[in-house]
Amino acid sequence: MNGSEAVSKQLQITDATQVAHIQQVLKLKVGERLKIGQRNGLIGSAQVAQLSDDQVLLTDVQLESQPPAKLDLRIILALPRPKVLRRLIMDMTAIGVAEIVLVNSYRTDKSYWQSPMLKRIDEFVQEGLQQGVDTIAPQIHLKKRFKPFVEDELPAMIAGQRAAVAHPYANKTLSELSATHGLPKWLCIGAEGGWIDYEVKLLQAQGCEVISFGDRILRTEAVVNALCGRYL
Amino acid sequence: MNGSEAVSKQLQITDATQVAHIQQVLKLKVGERLKIGQRNGLIGSAQVAQLSDDQVLLTDVQLESQPPAKLDLRIILALPRPKVLRRLIMDMTAIGVAEIVLVNSYRTDKSYWQSPMLKRIDEFVQEGLQQGVDTIAPQIHLKKRFKPFVEDELPAMIAGQRAAVAHPYANKTLSELSATHGLPKWLCIGAEGGWIDYEVKLLQAQGCEVISFGDRILRTEAVVNALCGRYL
Repeated sequence: MNGSEAVSKQLQITDATQVAHIQQVLKLKVGERLKIGQRNGLIGSAQVAQLSDDQVLLTDVQLESQPPAKLDLRIILALPRPKVLRRLIMDMTAIGVAEIVLVNSYRTDKSYWQSPMLKRIDEFVQEGLQQGVDTIAPQIHLKKRFKPFVEDELPAMIAGQRAAVAHPYANKTLSELSATHGLPKWLCIGAEGGWIDYEVKLLQAQGCEVISFGDRILRTEAVVNALCGRYL
Repeated sequence: MNGSEAVSKQLQITDATQVAHIQQVLKLKVGERLKIGQRNGLIGSAQVAQLSDDQVLLTDVQLESQPPAKLDLRIILALPRPKVLRRLIMDMTAIGVAEIVLVNSYRTDKSYWQSPMLKRIDEFVQEGLQQGVDTIAPQIHLKKRFKPFVEDELPAMIAGQRAAVAHPYANKTLSELSATHGLPKWLCIGAEGGWIDYEVKLLQAQGCEVISFGDRILRTEAVVNALCGRYL
């Protein structure tokens, strides 16, 4: 729950989704406490003072803890189908990915860039923050052209840091790589169908190591969470 | 794609979902090759000989490779909401979990055990095998009573193997545990809301170590994939 007036002693929640969540999912009653957080600020709790269909009034607002640390991980992800974008953004935010680049790829359908879901990324970030009990949004970048991004922007972005590209048929696994060199700070992950060889080569030319996660083909969401799990 | 007649040189696919997948998702044409696998058997490929709305005829069936090895991981999962059961079974199957126990828990709504989704588990396993390019189903057990399962059946199940229970507020992370002792062969994972203290204590009494994955609260699917990722 992120409140915009969390520095005052009283706080009014009028967002319809939040009001419904408090009453129907959390089932809080007057007098009970609600976990809250201030966007980009502290986390804490407040007491429910009044409940109605269109608002929740909170008192005794206490914001006292730092949000959890981010993972030491940044993800460059081929823009996936709009249908899975919501859960991917939500999961990466909830688990604490520090920075997310959504980039075009050969297997990204052109129409995905026109999807109304792209305008709702902030909303999915907000859901992820609420899920993960965090207040600080990951940085998110949209890059509609793969080659110019990789050749002109990526080098400065990853300068001095190790990066890896996930490719199902690579020889070395992330475990093997991290056993000798630690975990890379950047991971490039293809969407359904993965990167094509040309894209992997271009990423390699900028210094990305190629890692596999075995012979199995996984859903993009499963891959992203499985890789993030290594950083917890 | 799992065929029942894969030992012959010709193979007929009549399952409507599979026929649609071959034509609409894979967009295969006559003469192209399709990856196939025989349930509990080998994986390989076959050539598309004929395509129609209700069947696909394959020739030159070649089954020559072993399916990928399973992870050295068995999961005991609190039965989740029916809505997320499909993806959880599919993901655990695709990533290669060897054995799955779905168990009751305090936060499992009684109605979940009546869900028609429970009768469709085989179907979700099949989807997971197709996704993960595997042919061997994980063993799946349903345990409707938590305490009798944990006290009377779990000890024999995990005898001689290490087991851990995931609990958000534990002191030790899976990384810390595995750094000194290697990864446990069994993980007990709560559904939305996690295990209650009583359940954690009961699992501990049978020798399960308690591990956390940090301060963040994650969706069950995200937790399961993040934990499985450690075993890849």
